[in-house]
Amino acid sequence: MNCNVPTDICFSFTGFQARGGVTDVHTDGWGIAFFEGKGVRQFLDPVPSAKSPIADLVRGYPIRSKNVIAHIRKATQGVVSLENTHPFLRTLWGTNWVFAHNGNIQNFFPEIEKLLAPVGNTDSERVFCSLLQDLLKRFPQGPTSDQEFFAHLHQLILPISAMGEFNFLLSNGEFLVAHASTKLSYIVRQAPFSQALLKDQDVRVDFSQVTTANDRVAVIATEPLTLNETWTTIAPGTLMIFKEGQVVETRTTTPGPAKY
Amino acid sequence: MNCNVPTDICFSFTGFQARGGVTDVHTDGWGIAFFEGKGVRQFLDPVPSAKSPIADLVRGYPIRSKNVIAHIRKATQGVVSLENTHPFLRTLWGTNWVFAHNGNIQNFFPEIEKLLAPVGNTDSERVFCSLLQDLLKRFPQGPTSDQEFFAHLHQLILPISAMGEFNFLLSNGEFLVAHASTKLSYIVRQAPFSQALLKDQDVRVDFSQVTTANDRVAVIATEPLTLNETWTTIAPGTLMIFKEGQVVETRTTTPGPAKY
Repeated sequence: MNCNVPTDICFSFTGFQARGGVTDVHTDGWGIAFFEGKGVRQFLDPVPSAKSPIADLVRGYPIRSKNVIAHIRKATQGVVSLENTHPFLRTLWGTNWVFAHNGNIQNFFPEIEKLLAPVGNTDSERVFCSLLQDLLKRFPQGPTSDQEFFAHLHQLILPISAMGEFNFLLSNGEFLVAHASTKLSYIVRQAPFSQALLKDQDVRVDFSQVTTANDRVAVIATEPLTLNETWTTIAPGTLMIFKEGQVVETRTTTPGPAKY
Repeated sequence: MNCNVPTDICFSFTGFQARGGVTDVHTDGWGIAFFEGKGVRQFLDPVPSAKSPIADLVRGYPIRSKNVIAHIRKATQGVVSLENTHPFLRTLWGTNWVFAHNGNIQNFFPEIEKLLAPVGNTDSERVFCSLLQDLLKRFPQGPTSDQEFFAHLHQLILPISAMGEFNFLLSNGEFLVAHASTKLSYIVRQAPFSQALLKDQDVRVDFSQVTTANDRVAVIATEPLTLNETWTTIAPGTLMIFKEGQVVETRTTTPGPAKY
């Protein structure tokens, strides 16, 4: 989720939680990270989200955030353990970076300096650490501008995209980068707000009752979370940058899924 | 807490939670970090622990860990916000490092490279980042042995100790470093286990019912958490290393509190 005002994710999370063991098979742990100012609250649980007391808390505790990344895991590489649970968090240049990956990058073992070495043994964390290492080389003092950052990130993603399924979300609390390799959809909710009905749970919310006219909230998910709204499918091989609840940049990353 | 078997901290946390707004005045946020294997679960809340739904969850959810660091904050430097909430977490050399500080280090503004720059604006996080930077310079590939690490950490702590109140806890999930600058106590619980009664809440536990003969659990706290056990006061100006639930090293750091 990426918004222009701090927004709680309780509604969306209710549907999301069900996918970790009730309406979907992603049962190898789950996690969520909320940016609040420069700080991050990260909740991780290596148990299925549908059975997690921490997920119950998150569903009912309205934490207001402009950028949230949540993930439910179906393990491909790496055992089910806390250190392999997404989203991953690293602090670099005085900024928190949060990353979650859906997919599988085969045979990706880049040389990563000890400084930024992964803690666990997933392909996902290796990709994250490798991206940060390359970004650090390019921007030792931190990104000079969003534009330069996105342009360089785009270049870094191209070769990795060719190596496997690489749907990911990345945020620094200001922007949210979404990469569709095979499957990703999004919706931007803004005035006039209406009612939405979850796909995975019999729960509905009337956004017009809980928003102001200026609110803008983008939600990006592997599959649409609601039944009665129009979600946009992000074309495979697309990098999209969201800021303040809207798309600010779109870049093409080839190959799409047909290449592997 | 530092133990030789994964142990839940629910009992101790019940007393601890009360100090954030009920039996003590540390109401500027609280946090706790549990190591589980190489992973860390960190729960942070910038509200008083006595009123925090997340603290209620932690009190009732038995997370088993060999190393736990918890902190309730009384702000000295830095506003009350998530990024200023202890314990702080950084990942370095593929290892998670958790740090919490009780005290106040005046006029400590070392040069910290952008790479390891603090996110918030507390003296505590500056100290943590500065220590990691100095450790990284000494051990670019990670600590070569515990002994060399402790010896170097000891040297780094000496000048900072002279600058203010510097009670802290630091853990990498294997050992727990405790530094007493003014106030710190500890207890090692081992067989034969008996009953303990919390100081801050009318709650007791019979450890003999929930332990095995080989369990060993060290609990380190600013003030003793229980009424009917004998806690050891750590002399001001002492660095103690705990591993597998026992003290493995003790080093003197002068000056004690009389120096400032």
